[in-house]
Amino acid sequence: MSLPTTIEATACCVPRVTAAPTVEDAERVARVFKALGDPTRVRLLSLIAAGAGGEACICDLTEPVGLSQGTVSHHMKLLADAGLVTREQRGKWAYFSLNADTMDAAADALRVAAPRS
Amino acid sequence: MSLPTTIEATACCVPRVTAAPTVEDAERVARVFKALGDPTRVRLLSLIAAGAGGEACICDLTEPVGLSQGTVSHHMKLLADAGLVTREQRGKWAYFSLNADTMDAAADALRVAAPRS
Repeated sequence: MSLPTTIEATACCVPRVTAAPTVEDAERVARVFKALGDPTRVRLLSLIAAGAGGEACICDLTEPVGLSQGTVSHHMKLLADAGLVTREQRGKWAYFSLNADTMDAAADALRVAAPRS
Repeated sequence: MSLPTTIEATACCVPRVTAAPTVEDAERVARVFKALGDPTRVRLLSLIAAGAGGEACICDLTEPVGLSQGTVSHHMKLLADAGLVTREQRGKWAYFSLNADTMDAAADALRVAAPRS
């Protein structure tokens, strides 16, 4: 019987899914995955990862996903609020880069703690 | 410049988020994360992980999350459809266990492919 007794906090405070018994912990974990749970946002993350220097201008994101800048901005705000991307304003345009720490923390949160024999 | 050129399929065909350029791939990835993106479902996964033998009867899941069996069944169906849990009927009750392969595949999908120097 494997009983997770402690909350394993990861880099940016995403507790492990399988050891997140409190409502607050579960909400924190779910918020990150909810941000990832949309095909457009997955494609936006992919486009940013493929961008020169691992970043992308919002002006280059609208056409590939076929959505208006307002809609893309809304998706980018959800990703930024979840800590998955970092936003930097340069003159007229916003540039986005992936936050690898949050991506890693979300990945760690999914690891099933297997009992060691 | 790091350009993901191929879809990295993982154990249960969840492509890497940062290398999922097609609409179909993005939808497949997003479906798993959408299932994870709800606090009740995170708590249900946690309860199953903490259950004896890494499984739990649906009859033991309703009280901890404070929801009706119908609502819990609905959440469990979404988790099962996403491949995150496996369902086994034993007499009157359904028993659920985590599908570690899908959890691992989802974790792998979040790894940012860092350019090797």
